[in-house]
Amino acid sequence: MRDVAIIGAGMIPFGRRDEDTLMDMLACASLNALDDAGLGDQLVDAVYVANVGGGMLQRQTAIASSLADRLSLLPAAAETIENGPASGASAVKNGLLAIASGYYDTALVVGGEKMHEVDSHHATDFVSAMTHPQAEYLYGITMPGLGGLFARLYMEKYGVTREHLHAVTLKNHAMGALNPYANFKKPLNDKDIFDGPQALVNNPILADPLRLYDLCPISDGAAALVLSTVDIAKKSGRPYVVIAGFGQATDTHTLAERADPTELKAVSLSARKAFAMANLKPSDIHVAELHDAFTILEIAESERIGFFNEGEGGDAVSSGKTRLGGQIPINVSGGLKARGHPMGATGVAQIVDIVWQLRHELPENRQVKNAEIGLTINFGGFANNVLCFILRRVEA
Amino acid sequence: MRDVAIIGAGMIPFGRRDEDTLMDMLACASLNALDDAGLGDQLVDAVYVANVGGGMLQRQTAIASSLADRLSLLPAAAETIENGPASGASAVKNGLLAIASGYYDTALVVGGEKMHEVDSHHATDFVSAMTHPQAEYLYGITMPGLGGLFARLYMEKYGVTREHLHAVTLKNHAMGALNPYANFKKPLNDKDIFDGPQALVNNPILADPLRLYDLCPISDGAAALVLSTVDIAKKSGRPYVVIAGFGQATDTHTLAERADPTELKAVSLSARKAFAMANLKPSDIHVAELHDAFTILEIAESERIGFFNEGEGGDAVSSGKTRLGGQIPINVSGGLKARGHPMGATGVAQIVDIVWQLRHELPENRQVKNAEIGLTINFGGFANNVLCFILRRVEA
Repeated sequence: MRDVAIIGAGMIPFGRRDEDTLMDMLACASLNALDDAGLGDQLVDAVYVANVGGGMLQRQTAIASSLADRLSLLPAAAETIENGPASGASAVKNGLLAIASGYYDTALVVGGEKMHEVDSHHATDFVSAMTHPQAEYLYGITMPGLGGLFARLYMEKYGVTREHLHAVTLKNHAMGALNPYANFKKPLNDKDIFDGPQALVNNPILADPLRLYDLCPISDGAAALVLSTVDIAKKSGRPYVVIAGFGQATDTHTLAERADPTELKAVSLSARKAFAMANLKPSDIHVAELHDAFTILEIAESERIGFFNEGEGGDAVSSGKTRLGGQIPINVSGGLKARGHPMGATGVAQIVDIVWQLRHELPENRQVKNAEIGLTINFGGFANNVLCFILRRVEA
Repeated sequence: MRDVAIIGAGMIPFGRRDEDTLMDMLACASLNALDDAGLGDQLVDAVYVANVGGGMLQRQTAIASSLADRLSLLPAAAETIENGPASGASAVKNGLLAIASGYYDTALVVGGEKMHEVDSHHATDFVSAMTHPQAEYLYGITMPGLGGLFARLYMEKYGVTREHLHAVTLKNHAMGALNPYANFKKPLNDKDIFDGPQALVNNPILADPLRLYDLCPISDGAAALVLSTVDIAKKSGRPYVVIAGFGQATDTHTLAERADPTELKAVSLSARKAFAMANLKPSDIHVAELHDAFTILEIAESERIGFFNEGEGGDAVSSGKTRLGGQIPINVSGGLKARGHPMGATGVAQIVDIVWQLRHELPENRQVKNAEIGLTINFGGFANNVLCFILRRVEA
């Protein structure tokens, strides 16, 4: 299996993008990544599009072919990869293995979603279509609903408090405020949303114990990467990033079927596989983007990956260990919480942010100093399909 | 790039399957393929599901994770691949390259579609969602509509006649009648549908010059393959099949943008790439499954691949050259025309049929004698994304 490099990374600002079609967003993010890769006249061999709602929300299938044409990349191979909220990471995985196989030398991987095509009730229903059709969806459970059940269990088992969850919200919104690509660019200074007399008005309970500010928003957005062989990456004459480790694991599709739903087995297993491939351990990681669709998940994942011991993830956030400048900065981008979570885009955007970190291109107030190794966790369903990447900076 | 073998192949009968969910169909085809592979207790490393309409028709996403769970294949990696009617071939391609890379040793590839979830008007609209959203879909063009325009042009340019199209229909329905997995199991003996006084009643014009019996049906169905390294294939002690060649190419998403729409550039190019990889030429092929969504396409493809010279494909069918026992038997399965075309299933089913041919497992009235090399063409959109596979028998 030959090494695969990331030579281009691009994004468009996440948020509400009524003026753009899904195709516009995919095309713009792709052009940013292709520009960054600087391949010049050389076309890419293949296009991988991560998207969930093209058919359901835009009534449009075969968008990968359409995008290849729009970007004048014909006759590049093209297909769409869907894996719920982990579609982005799944698309990167397929690009990775295709180049690793030797069949392709270059690939564009782009993820995008236009969730504001429908109102928020229908968007929530769209998101819930990833749950089990007979055992979950039929009974009206939503992803925030599952998140609430999970949060209650995790908090009781490991002593995670609402203050710990608030710390995640505050950290990620503070970082999102500095990120020009984030959906939420306003820091949350108002303690009233947490414990003032108006707290339950400003920050209502949506899925007890989770409140509004514990949940990621519904976002439109797209992000893209250009992958290549290391030989091509070397020609750029600048530092590049290699995919040093990759792991993926599935778990039961229904949360209720797990002996211990707090385990998040697919998170630990995918991370373990990625660490083994990269020959690294959790303490080697300098920066991480985790899947904080709900605040509780950032804490749980930070433990399951091995950044902290079981039950210590909450205090780690509160004490600033996961802040920029801390022991292991997590979601410096603002995470799903503040950057936003356009489903197909997220897994790609996480890697774009890590690439920028590892190339030391971010402004000082967002850059993890001398970051050389980064990690991402992107999860599909309620951790029923998790992908972990470990990325490493290589000097020119 | 290491060689990849096909060690398991399975299908379920195509047709109207109201009693099954999409997941039932995917699971049954998968179990047939896994049974055939005889891996015993060994799980597969990864699952690739080809499907287009899960979200639009069944309101269900993340079906690959759900299937991995249903089949007790956890923690196997899993994702869904969508490429319109070429989703099946695209899923096989991603499984192929993943094993070729060395990352996985085994993969289950399964394609399926439950198109009868909605009535035929909505099914036609669902299929049309693969056309260009602004330049085609918005104007109400359907796939049969594009097929009619293409047929008119091709027939006039190359002298293809209605009799040539009838010959494709008769051949493929005759073969479908012998195939227990086919949607249409009744041979068409009645010449009245072609030229009798009731011809236009029994076989009405749907998209001039194409009539009802020129079009593939709307079908439910699923098909599956198990891919592995050659080392694993050898352990079975029986003949197996290797993927000797693979090629893919895209073309303009809108048919109208092509200088010459009859060219089907993506067909010639994908076939050329597959032949180059396999180091073979068209005359080396013993049996082929082509994408006859419309009768005219089987003729056009047989020329673009290089089985026949330009303008000779029509006579080739009429004179029996593409029949079982002829120069190059095409669509011995009945093709999309008679076996049916459940979108995500088709590309996988084509390869299942070729695997059975190359393992010499079919009854005499369907078996191409001593077939050792087979080819498939699966196309997405109106040939805007075409995949070609060349398969070769290897003795135990």
